[in-house]
Amino acid sequence: MAYKIAVLPGDGIGPEIVAQAKKVCDAITKKFGHEFEYTEALVGATAIDQVGDPYPADTHELCMNSDAVLFGAIGHPKFDNDPSAKVRPEQGLLKMRKTLGLYANLRPVNTFKSLIHKSPLKTELVDGADFMCIRELTGGIYFGRPQGRSEDGQTAYDSCVYTAEEIERIIRLGFEYAGKRRKKLTIVDKANVLATSRLWREIGQKVAPDYPDIEVEYMFVDNAAMQIITWPKRFDVMVTENMFGDILTDEASVISGSMGMLPSASIGVHTSVFEPIHGSYPQAAGKNIANPCATVLSAAMMFEYAFGMMKEGALIREAVDQSLEAGVVTEDIADGKKAYSTSEVGDWLAEYIE
Amino acid sequence: MAYKIAVLPGDGIGPEIVAQAKKVCDAITKKFGHEFEYTEALVGATAIDQVGDPYPADTHELCMNSDAVLFGAIGHPKFDNDPSAKVRPEQGLLKMRKTLGLYANLRPVNTFKSLIHKSPLKTELVDGADFMCIRELTGGIYFGRPQGRSEDGQTAYDSCVYTAEEIERIIRLGFEYAGKRRKKLTIVDKANVLATSRLWREIGQKVAPDYPDIEVEYMFVDNAAMQIITWPKRFDVMVTENMFGDILTDEASVISGSMGMLPSASIGVHTSVFEPIHGSYPQAAGKNIANPCATVLSAAMMFEYAFGMMKEGALIREAVDQSLEAGVVTEDIADGKKAYSTSEVGDWLAEYIE
Ligand SMILES: CC(C)[C@H](C(=O)O)[C@@H](O)C(=O)O
Ligand SMILES: CC(C)[C@H](C(=O)O)[C@@H](O)C(=O)O
Repeated sequence: MAYKIAVLPGDGIGPEIVAQAKKVCDAITKKFGHEFEYTEALVGATAIDQVGDPYPADTHELCMNSDAVLFGAIGHPKFDNDPSAKVRPEQGLLKMRKTLGLYANLRPVNTFKSLIHKSPLKTELVDGADFMCIRELTGGIYFGRPQGRSEDGQTAYDSCVYTAEEIERIIRLGFEYAGKRRKKLTIVDKANVLATSRLWREIGQKVAPDYPDIEVEYMFVDNAAMQIITWPKRFDVMVTENMFGDILTDEASVISGSMGMLPSASIGVHTSVFEPIHGSYPQAAGKNIANPCATVLSAAMMFEYAFGMMKEGALIREAVDQSLEAGVVTEDIADGKKAYSTSEVGDWLAEYIE
Repeated sequence: MAYKIAVLPGDGIGPEIVAQAKKVCDAITKKFGHEFEYTEALVGATAIDQVGDPYPADTHELCMNSDAVLFGAIGHPKFDNDPSAKVRPEQGLLKMRKTLGLYANLRPVNTFKSLIHKSPLKTELVDGADFMCIRELTGGIYFGRPQGRSEDGQTAYDSCVYTAEEIERIIRLGFEYAGKRRKKLTIVDKANVLATSRLWREIGQKVAPDYPDIEVEYMFVDNAAMQIITWPKRFDVMVTENMFGDILTDEASVISGSMGMLPSASIGVHTSVFEPIHGSYPQAAGKNIANPCATVLSAAMMFEYAFGMMKEGALIREAVDQSLEAGVVTEDIADGKKAYSTSEVGDWLAEYIE
């Protein structure tokens, strides 16, 4: 039986980069004799324009019935200056996360030898950094209620809410990933101030004995924001709540100096979504210049995480490494040397794999 | 009439570093013929040990009746592993902030030529960075209610609450500081997700026309966490809410590479508090090795912000710059060269001023 993949290109450069990831998937299919069934659907500003909803019911149904979702990017500048606008692309994203139950956002942070000089950090600090950020994605202040305004409009409020179950699910995931890596888990919270964080810490302490081979540490979020810069190599797996994760994963993403190379996976109850961490980069849309590697590496995560196809994932990674070696790269990382187009890089990767 | 200064040395290295700041204040007094009245009081773990309360009523009364508070540091490792302990030093800090109405925490981020090589960032990125972080300090999720647990203990919740008045007060302060600097204000929020952030943005937009010479920009907190590392020089004044400020100011503090040199001011309704941004560094307590400069520079901020004594503040800054030039520095920044003790650095600074 063919695996079903929902393809959601989204906005800006989304369609171009997803097209390259699809090429790579096709190459994997040929090489390994798999079968995949792809179905495209609308999401983001494109979906607002076409059907008035950033995450239409059709798209949701498709995702629910798919084994994995390959996602491009969403966002359009016309929505940027009015965060209170009624219909916005981000609402689609949040609705998708909630309704698909995408509770764990995984973001590997690592470096590429040939790109390390692009890091804002000194090379010796960042060379060899390799950690996994796990962000809780369907709870906390993003979804807590009540949220709103007092009647006179003079007071606004948000609620950060976590249940023990939500916390335990993601913390156990953290322990499990740590078990497959260097066996160190950092649980980031603000337990000296927040009641939710105290529950996080309590649950960390409750489940830790089930993973006796994992070294676990608890770190306040302000300290984590410092350590990510001053000593990124200290981290192996980091797990944290939704809002802290939003901030820390973005902070961590820039230290490698290669934003265009970073994939992500959002593991869900109903399906899982694989997408580059960068945005829709509207200035580059349609120009065939965007770096497709983050999306291609997201496809590698899809093979590994959604289908358990480890060799396939590894081969995609190898292809990307080799393209860097060979200098077959887009202008963002070409460093003044010859820059290849988005589709040329995609073609090269697909050919390498076949 | 003499200005009244409450002196709260606190824990760890607090007493040693505050002693140097006092020396420097005494030198200023002599030089300029001012009169100050100093009164010491307990705070932090020391206060818990002696009277069972991290912010005793006596201390509060003294602060309420003082023109400024010179603060060392609080915290002791014995409280570190149990964030739910009944009595903790941080509770004293939060109570002090709330009851003194310390609504604005100001943290200048800047670099020192001779220390710039200690930054984790590449020199060209950080050299010349000079911005002011303004963190709202008495609102938001730190103090919002309800906070706690459901009856069955299985759900925890925190509330982030802001009134229009609280927001307007701090945003206006941001505009005013920007007016005295490079005239650029960055208001950091998460208005695409949070109701409180949407009120922040609304109020920013409401008051901006009162400051026509200030360029104002709105930035999402995740983006700010990236920009602080990738392009710190873009910032002039940044203003944000309490929790985001906690994370971003700590992140920003490490980019200069000289944590031991960074002061802060917390501007209040009843009085203002001046303290180094670093912690109580218990491992160094009593060893006469800690860097007193952050506290000395906090005293400089006290002269400027609490007493409007600009020349006095400038002279203290000059003394610190000269001590760096002269290599009269503590071991944290001595770079393998001769290290001076805490009190030797204090003596040198006081002598320079006289
Ligand atoms: C667009 C926004 C709602 C979203 C978030 O805050 O989760 C984004 O920043 C992200 O990290 O995916
Ligand atoms: C100790 C803690 C409560 C405090 C805070 O979060 O405000 C500290 O991190 C700070 O920034 O002063």
